[in-house]
Formats: sequence, C-alpha cells, structure tokens
Amino acid sequence: MDILRFDSDYMEGVHPEILRRLSEINFEKNKAYGLDRYCDSAKQKIREACGTPGAEVYFLVGGTQTNAVAINAFLEPYEGVVAAETGHINQHEAGAIEAGGHKVITLPQHDGKIAADELREMLRRFYADEARLHMVRPGMVYISHPTEYGTLYTANELRGLRRICDEYGMALYLDGARLGYGLAAPSTDLTLPLIAENCDAFYIGGTKVGALFGEALVIPRAGRVKQMFTRIKRQGALLAKGWLLGLQFDTLFTDGLYYKISARAVKMAEKLEQGLCAKGYPMYINSPTNQKFVVLEDEVMRELSKRVGFCFWEKPDEGHTVVRFATSWATKEEDVERLLLLV
Amino acid sequence: MDILRFDSDYMEGVHPEILRRLSEINFEKNKAYGLDRYCDSAKQKIREACGTPGAEVYFLVGGTQTNAVAINAFLEPYEGVVAAETGHINQHEAGAIEAGGHKVITLPQHDGKIAADELREMLRRFYADEARLHMVRPGMVYISHPTEYGTLYTANELRGLRRICDEYGMALYLDGARLGYGLAAPSTDLTLPLIAENCDAFYIGGTKVGALFGEALVIPRAGRVKQMFTRIKRQGALLAKGWLLGLQFDTLFTDGLYYKISARAVKMAEKLEQGLCAKGYPMYINSPTNQKFVVLEDEVMRELSKRVGFCFWEKPDEGHTVVRFATSWATKEEDVERLLLLV
Amino acid sequence: MDILRFDSDYMEGVHPEILRRLSEINFEKNKAYGLDRYCDSAKQKIREACGTPGAEVYFLVGGTQTNAVAINAFLEPYEGVVAAETGHINQHEAGAIEAGGHKVITLPQHDGKIAADELREMLRRFYADEARLHMVRPGMVYISHPTEYGTLYTANELRGLRRICDEYGMALYLDGARLGYGLAAPSTDLTLPLIAENCDAFYIGGTKVGALFGEALVIPRAGRVKQMFTRIKRQGALLAKGWLLGLQFDTLFTDGLYYKISARAVKMAEKLEQGLCAKGYPMYINSPTNQKFVVLEDEVMRELSKRVGFCFWEKPDEGHTVVRFATSWATKEEDVERLLLLV
Amino acid sequence: MDILRFDSDYMEGVHPEILRRLSEINFEKNKAYGLDRYCDSAKQKIREACGTPGAEVYFLVGGTQTNAVAINAFLEPYEGVVAAETGHINQHEAGAIEAGGHKVITLPQHDGKIAADELREMLRRFYADEARLHMVRPGMVYISHPTEYGTLYTANELRGLRRICDEYGMALYLDGARLGYGLAAPSTDLTLPLIAENCDAFYIGGTKVGALFGEALVIPRAGRVKQMFTRIKRQGALLAKGWLLGLQFDTLFTDGLYYKISARAVKMAEKLEQGLCAKGYPMYINSPTNQKFVVLEDEVMRELSKRVGFCFWEKPDEGHTVVRFATSWATKEEDVERLLLLV
Repeated sequence: MDILRFDSDYMEGVHPEILRRLSEINFEKNKAYGLDRYCDSAKQKIREACGTPGAEVYFLVGGTQTNAVAINAFLEPYEGVVAAETGHINQHEAGAIEAGGHKVITLPQHDGKIAADELREMLRRFYADEARLHMVRPGMVYISHPTEYGTLYTANELRGLRRICDEYGMALYLDGARLGYGLAAPSTDLTLPLIAENCDAFYIGGTKVGALFGEALVIPRAGRVKQMFTRIKRQGALLAKGWLLGLQFDTLFTDGLYYKISARAVKMAEKLEQGLCAKGYPMYINSPTNQKFVVLEDEVMRELSKRVGFCFWEKPDEGHTVVRFATSWATKEEDVERLLLLV
Repeated sequence: MDILRFDSDYMEGVHPEILRRLSEINFEKNKAYGLDRYCDSAKQKIREACGTPGAEVYFLVGGTQTNAVAINAFLEPYEGVVAAETGHINQHEAGAIEAGGHKVITLPQHDGKIAADELREMLRRFYADEARLHMVRPGMVYISHPTEYGTLYTANELRGLRRICDEYGMALYLDGARLGYGLAAPSTDLTLPLIAENCDAFYIGGTKVGALFGEALVIPRAGRVKQMFTRIKRQGALLAKGWLLGLQFDTLFTDGLYYKISARAVKMAEKLEQGLCAKGYPMYINSPTNQKFVVLEDEVMRELSKRVGFCFWEKPDEGHTVVRFATSWATKEEDVERLLLLV
Repeated sequence: MDILRFDSDYMEGVHPEILRRLSEINFEKNKAYGLDRYCDSAKQKIREACGTPGAEVYFLVGGTQTNAVAINAFLEPYEGVVAAETGHINQHEAGAIEAGGHKVITLPQHDGKIAADELREMLRRFYADEARLHMVRPGMVYISHPTEYGTLYTANELRGLRRICDEYGMALYLDGARLGYGLAAPSTDLTLPLIAENCDAFYIGGTKVGALFGEALVIPRAGRVKQMFTRIKRQGALLAKGWLLGLQFDTLFTDGLYYKISARAVKMAEKLEQGLCAKGYPMYINSPTNQKFVVLEDEVMRELSKRVGFCFWEKPDEGHTVVRFATSWATKEEDVERLLLLV
Repeated sequence: MDILRFDSDYMEGVHPEILRRLSEINFEKNKAYGLDRYCDSAKQKIREACGTPGAEVYFLVGGTQTNAVAINAFLEPYEGVVAAETGHINQHEAGAIEAGGHKVITLPQHDGKIAADELREMLRRFYADEARLHMVRPGMVYISHPTEYGTLYTANELRGLRRICDEYGMALYLDGARLGYGLAAPSTDLTLPLIAENCDAFYIGGTKVGALFGEALVIPRAGRVKQMFTRIKRQGALLAKGWLLGLQFDTLFTDGLYYKISARAVKMAEKLEQGLCAKGYPMYINSPTNQKFVVLEDEVMRELSKRVGFCFWEKPDEGHTVVRFATSWATKEEDVERLLLLV
C-alpha cells in the first residue's frame, strides 16, 4: 500500500508549466552564467513584483548556498549575524556561515521568531560593554519568513527590526526559502514590496515553491555589495547553465503563478488543519502557512506512520510527539482527504 | 540571420532521454538530499563503469563546487594543491580553492598538462629545503582531463603521476569536467577503470556532457575522507532534490549513453578540424577531444565572428588570434557543415 | 594621588628572575623558531611537571592565538567546539574560532563552568536528531580553568567531562590562561598531572602568571595532530626569537616558581576578600583564585573608582554593580592593605 | 671552539637601551592592549618620522602575522595580492595569506624585485580578459623592501608601482621586516616619508632591527580600513601587554636609534663584503643592505661551515653554493674581522 507523503515541500519535481518551457527551449543555445535573456526577463519581473526598479537580482541553486553568499557579501570579517537559535543558519546549515568566518549570534526564539525588544537589549548591552572591540560586532539581523515553525512576521514587526538595524548600522536579511507560502497566508500583511522596502537583502525561494531548484536573491537598493558575480563564483555557487534558473523564475513570476501555487498549498494546509482539529488533534503552534505542527500521542503517531509520511519535530513530553505535515504546490486535495480519513 | 554557435559545450539543455524521464517522474515523491533510489542506482552504475565496487560516489551541481569540496576534503589546512598554471582551479575559479584556505602551487603547462619530471623536481627541491616547515606542503596533484586545451594524459603519464604521489604521500585528483569527451577520443588509452585505479578522487562531468547540470565525484577507495555529506552541506553544495542528479547520471550510465554522446561530439569536432585544415587553417594545439583551437588571421576572425560564435582564446602574435570551437553532445552535423561553408 | 590598580593580572612586566636571565643571555646567538636549548629545557621541565614524558609542548605568544591554533588543529572542518556561553572563545576573542571556520556551540554557564549533565543531554539530542548530518558535529569540549569567573573544576568534574568526551569521540581542551592561580587555590584537587591525564590539550598561561608574554600548549599524548610547526606558522603565531618563550617558561618551571608566585597572588586575593567581607561587602561568586567579584552599591563604586582601579563586571540590579578585583604575581601586600583602608 | 654566527639577523636579544627601559618600568602598571602611553608616544614618533601626522600605527608581534592582518584588511574576499615569486608571503609564510582566503598572484622576480612593466602587462591582460569576473581580482601589490635578496627599490621604481596601483585601483603594501637596513643603505634614495607617501600600508620591522620582537604597521592615510583593533584580535595578533611593543618602538625612534643601529649593521656588511671580494669571492647579487650573498666552492663551503654559521641559499651549479651572511644591529666588528681571517 502506498504511503501518503507529507514529509516536506521538496519531494516533487517542478511545476508542469516550467517543465513545458524547459522542453520547448531544450536545444536553444544560450549564454552561460546567467547572462541570458531568461534571466534578464525574470529579473525584470521580480523587480516589478518588488516595486524596486533598481534592484539587483541573482539566481542561486539552493538555500544554504544563498544564505552563505549573501551573508558573506554584507558582513565585514569581524562581524557576525544575529539569528534566532532555531534559525536555519544556526541549526541546519552544517556551519556554512562559520565556514565563511562569521559567528552566528543567537537570540531566543518565540515560535521561531526573534523579538525586537530582545534584539534591542542585546545590542544595548553590546554597545555598553567596554570590551566590545574584543567581541564580534553584530553586523546583520537574519530572519526566516516563514520561520522554521511556519510562523510569520507582521509588517509592524518587520518595520521594528528595520528601525533597530538602522539605529545600529546593521543589515537586515530575510531568508525566504518558503516565501511564497508566507505571502499567500490569508492573515499576513507582509508583501513583496514591503519586504523589499525594509530588507537590505532577501531571497525568494524556488526549490520549495514550484521550481526544480533555485533561489532568487534580491538586493533592493543596488550597489550595497561589490562584484557579486565573482563572489558567487568563488563560493562555487555559479550555475553554468544559468538560464535554467532564469526560465524557472520567469515562469513563476508570470501571471502570478508563484502566488497561485503558494495560495493553493496554504489552502490545502488549512484543510488539513481543520480536519485534524475537528478530530481533536491540537496544533502545537499556530502556523498560518504550509507547515502544520500537530501534537500526537506516541501510540497514535506510531500507528499513523505506517501509512503516512510526516516529519518528526520534537517531544514536548513523555507520551506525546510533535510532528510536521507539509503541503506544497504539488499537494493533491484527495491526498489531504485520504489523510483525514486515516487519523 | 542566425549565428552558428560553437562557443562552448554548455549552451544547450539536456539529453532528451533525461528530459523524458524527468517528466515521467515529475510528481513522484522522493527522499531529499540524495538518499533516493535514483542516486542509489546511478552510484551503482558508476561503480560498475569504474570497476570499483566499493567506491564512494557523490553528486554535486557544478565543477568549481566539486573541485572545492574534494580538494578541501583531502587536504590538511597546511597543505596546498599542485596544478598547471593553466589549471581551471588556478585560473578560472575565482579563488575558490584559496577561499578554503589552500594554496594552488603552480607548475608550467605543456599543452595544458603538467610534466612528471617537473613535478618531481619541484618536490625534490621542497623536501631538500631546510625551510620547508615554513612552506605550504604539496598535499595533492590536480590535473584536468581533458585539459583546458582539450589535450589528454596517456595511461603511462597518469601512472607516472601516481607513482610520484605515492612516493611523496600526495593525493591525485582528476577534474573530469569534460571526461566523456576524453574517454571518447579515438587515440586515448585511458579508461574509467584506469582512472579509478590511479586517482584518489576524480569527477565525471555531466554539465558539459549531456546533463542539465551535475558532476559525479568518485572516491574509488572508500573511507579516505570522513563525513562527506556534512562537508558538502557546509560548502552549500547539497542539492535538496538530489534525485535530479541521480536520475541524470543514471540515464547517462545506462546503455553507454555517456560514451555514445561523447563519441558523437568528438566525431563532430574531428569533422570540423578536417574541414578547417583542408581549407588551410592551422590548429594551434593538437586536441583529440571536442575542443579545437584554430589560428585565424585577425581579419578573417572578425569577419567570421559576424556569423559564427566561438571563443576567443589568446593572441599568439600581432595579426593572428587563437579561437576555440567547441562541439557538444548536442551539436548537429549540419551546423558543422554550414560552418565549413562559411570559412 | 596615585590610583591603586587591581584592574587585571596583566598590568605589570615580568618576574625579576626572568628579566635577570634575559639580560644575562641578551647577546647570546640562539637558533630561531623555538629550536633553541631554552625551549628544549623548558619543554622537559613542563613534561616532568605534567608527568607525561612523551608530551608535545609548543610555546605561543598569547591566549586567543593559542586557542585558535589548538582548536583548529584538533577539529575537522565540519566540527565545532562546545563551550560555556561565557567562555573566552565565545565572548572575547573577536570571532577567532569562527575565523578558522568552526562554530562555538554554547552551553549555559554555572559560575563560569559547564555542567556534565547538560553537556550529555546536548549530545544525546544531537545524536538522536535525524538531521544531525546537516548540523555541526561537536568535536571538542572547551573549558577554561580557572573560568572567567575565577571558579574551578574539581577532579571529579574533569573526569566526568573526560568520560563524556570518550563516549562521543570528542577532544577535551583546557584554556589555562590563569592556570597557575587555579593550581594554587587551597581548595583545589586538580593538579597538572591530572589535567594532563584527562585533557587532549591544554595550555599553561604565562602572560598573566609572571611572564612578559607566552603560553605553553601541552599535548600530553604525542601524535594527536600533525605538523604543528607549520600550523603555528600559518596562523602567524610562530615567534622568530622563540628562545624568549623558552627562557621564560624554563624559569617559571625551575624550583616551582610558577606555583610560588601563583600561591602568593591567591593569598593576596584571600586577604582582600576577607577584608572586604569583614566590612560587609558581599562576594558575587565564590572564587577561590586571584579574581574576586564583589557587589558594590553604585554610589560606593563611583566613589571608590576615584582612588582604586578595578574592572566593571555586570549589573545585577538597579543600584548595585559587580566589580572584579584581580591580584597577580606582582601584587604588593601593602597595596591590598591600602585598598582595605579605602573601602 | 666557538662558531662565528652570521646565520641571520634575529639571533640576539634586544638593544641594551630597550632592555634598560623595560627593567626600569617593569613594575609599572600599564593599560593593556596597546592603550598605554608608551604606545601613544611611539606612534607619535613614527608619525613624525614618516611625515604623516594623521597616520594610523598598529604594533604587532611578528612579520607573517603583520602581513596576514594587513593584507586581509585591505583586500575584498574576491581579491588577491600580487607578489614576486620569491616574496616572503608566497614562499615562507606557510600559506598564511591563503588561510585568509586570498590568492598570491606571482610575478617573476628580478634580484627579488618585481618589474613595473611586467606588473602592468599582467594587469593589462587581466582587464582584457573577458573571463576576468571568473578570476581573482588583483587588489594589492606586495613588495618587500629590502627584498629577500637584500636588494632595494629606488624612489622612481616605487613611484612607478604607485602609479600602476592608482591606475588599476590597487593598494600598495611594503613589507619592511628589514626596513632599517634598507633605509641605512648608502646608495638608497628611499626615505620613510617617501614610503609613506607612496604606500597604502607598510610595516617597520623591529624583530630583525634591535627589538626583542615587534613590527609597526603604518597606514599613512587614516580611515582606509575599519576596526583594525578587532581585526587584529580576531587573528590572534593582539598582545595583552601592548606597552612592551610601544616601549620598544619608542626607544628605537628616539634620537634616531633605529637608523644608527641599522647603519652600523650595513657598515659591518660592507666590511664583510669588501673583505670577501678582496679574497676573490664573488657576490651572487649586488645587495646594498645587511645580507650578503656569496658564491663559494662547495669544498670551501663545507670547510668554512665548521667554524662559521651562515645560511644555505641556493645552488647555482654543480660545485658551487650560494650562502648568505647576515649582519645585524648586534654584530661585533671583531667577529667580522675574525671571519675574514678564516676565509
């Protein structure tokens, strides 16, 4: 019997429209290294979607890579990046930031987010410390949006972080591995233009939102960092056939496809949540995006795991387990319905 | 009017059979990070092709990335890698090796190759130098095969380098970005098993030989380096949808496809060379693979460049230019014929 | 009027006996880079003091440098070092460990120390985590002894950490910037041989304990790391006139000088503590070494600071401040007495 | 029987006047990390000697360390430093520059120097290369003065390099490990102010010129690099008792001591050269500073080595060896005379 898989949002290939176009241009001869017309077109569409006509846009292959390239580009060698202790760069990137020589300075997480007042207090202490020149200077704030817990910053929270960054001369960077699912959440008041207005850099995730692979790094105000092309190459992150990235993002940003497929995944997740709640399963965290964190009795979990794939998250106590169900752009409604029949 | 493009061997997409299979499994749900069945199958086929049942195989996205990961994995921090001055890692990887903390120690190039006697003399001097503990220890020899000039090492030459590496406790690494085109050269006596026997690590290039992207790093004798998975992740080189790489290499190593398409590209290059020679254009270097280096009068070159894409290589003297024509797995015979009508 | 200075233990020059010997041999011609007879002799004496005849000993100039060299030497690129959040490498070394590519993984501090059970729990979680290959592997435990709060590990605590390191394949490293003051504490049951038995590496601090500068890095079981000479040079840590380090440690380890001057400093610190306690000033932390942390009312502190130098430490609440008084090998008893008259 | 030692210029301790002052202030309590009055005074004297009232001056412990800190501070991650193939950073610093992530780009050496026309040609080629964004950008020119062969740049040569650096947006850095001996050469037209005028950074060597240890890094035009204090700390190069460095340079730059002792060393080297020439020994290179490179028949060399210490340099042919005799601030005239009696 088949297993219903809700393990993650990167288990399937690519949106069929992208595959169609890839097939169509398969024998076209394109310029290498992102200097092709598909990249040009995709960049233009992303600039428009962000409301920043002068933005620099770079296409990279994966999230850890994009984080490492962007953070290295913005930080001086003696600077570190502030992140929630649960931030992806702190937990699950195998030390890629430290490999570039930078410390990840952690703050407590609140449902995956950092709190402005704790950030401010940390900075106040740092600048009050007479020994601060012996310490790593906080040079950037990293947030993931949605966070690793599927939660979202509000527009006011983002503006609050921006103000603190301005006060202390720091860059604000947003890891948007699942950005589409965040933008599509019904409750959010964050938009791409608002993110572009408040962040020094961010990336629009493709790998988990309809692309085969690929992330679009946006630097809304051009000229903040020099010679990104060589930086990208130096970190082994320059794709020879860059048009593969351009074509994917060009497709995702045509006719709002990126939003449409994200919205559908969020709707599937809502259906899943409602069904689980109706059956009495409590949510661990209030996530408005495509990841749902559910508390299961261990016995129920073990039984369910024979027929459904999900992701172990954490153990809140003896006897219970938190598991994650993730929908994606490719989730079928019937699979959600089948899942709900099983629980 | 269309331009005939012979600029490089990474201008087209992917072999149709790979595209077909990608389409076929597009909605399959696969395990991430290379733990899927396509990677398993591809690794098995590569092990068989290399005659090394115990080999470790890792799939990475691009060449610079693969070189950086492999070289970092084999070298101690105080070691450097020896390469021809024209070696890709020395010239065109934007300092990716140095970014990992390692010096590239250069030897003169002879049609892109290093000479065993010059390597040996360099090592003799190093170990005779009383100050050698103040110096970077040569810990690895890097060769590209085919070289950046399309030339090939012979089996004897490779064995000779192996012997020197054994004498001096060094690893031997082969950059096979265009390995298929090397293996398909009629004149070569190098085979995959022979490479596997003599090298500590090498990669089989996919990006330039029929894949959308991807390189297969082979470590013929397992256990030489520890925890490659984490090393790959740390360098931002772990593809989330690893099965994309597995499926491509599985296809390339099914029914000898990798060799067939390489052989065809070499045949096209030979046809191109014969045609050019027949018209009196001298070859700059005797390359038996898919890259042909031709000496053109500057005036001829300028005229030709209006209708044909090629790659500027170098200026041997005032009045002449060396240009490169590259064929690939996707080159059409009629395009070669059209080119020969134009020159 | 003169200020009485108790700011730190590195405000004075060097023990007079060292100065005498430096003067005596000033025009001797010595071999460079630590290959001289004074280094040989000092190493021998340190080996004897540690009860480890086969130990490797290296002399370096400063503490941050020694930590960076030692930690880099023991860790694989994908490994990090576990430390208390207040550990010197985490707080006050400007990211020197991250500059070498390694994460500092923090544990809570308890009077500056890490707790074995928290270490074990962290490791248990790490090895239970299915995503651990995406994470930095804990490869070493770092402790400072005395800690940044002047506190000490017991022999049992050290053995406990050793056991955990053995279970999980980790190195144990002890930062002994103030080791003399720790060994001289009346209450300690830790000795040099016991440290040497339980640690994979540690350093005996000179800079703060009677030397002009210098730290002796000890690797009790030889052969754990390769080619330390070149590693040291590569990190810019090789002193040309290495005999300056050898002579200092040779003197400190002749006739127990290192212990004698340390014991005297601890005695001065005890006198200071008793005097302060007698006057009703509470200690913030129970430190048995040369650093005393005292809680002062802010008003008292401000007044005192006009006539006495001390180090601001932290603010436990509005209205009070914790300050540090440090004695050293050079502290005069009359200065302690004068201080006690002033408070 | 005693060996006469001319092996190197860092075999003795320190100029007696420095030792006298060190003894005098041994129990003074000084501020740490170079914030003391001796550093202040020394910096002021160095600024005056350089004719650059606004210069930043930093004191570091050794040459490799100073080079690594300075080069890291000036280069962007994607930039490299151009040096003669015999440059100290390329040969004898164990890869310390690469450890910071930077390539050393080599030029041929001419008696240890680089030639302006070869530098210009290299840069012309780089900027003419369409692939240059895939390459390490030359961001700095490194020269040693005196070079590793004891030779000197002229004022015109230095100005020539400066012009090229200006044209191509590069920094010019001078490694002055033996700068005193260069400034004291009778034939030189280079002065400290002229060096300060033409270089973006340089260091005045102390270790080989009268100090126990120490190098003074000068950045003539302030503000070129940010937060040097933290950069120095991060590289493990911050001396706790910084006043030891300040006092030494304060003494060396009082009453022209640095020049006087350098001039004497050069005079001793001239006497040695004249004596050797008078006896028919040819110089290998025309070095006007404290290092003399002499061609000896192998048999003569072996015999001489029983009674005189010198440094093996290279073998120009079978049967002959080039050896180096180095004088220093501490060389006694009678030792030169005794040496000349022995050859």
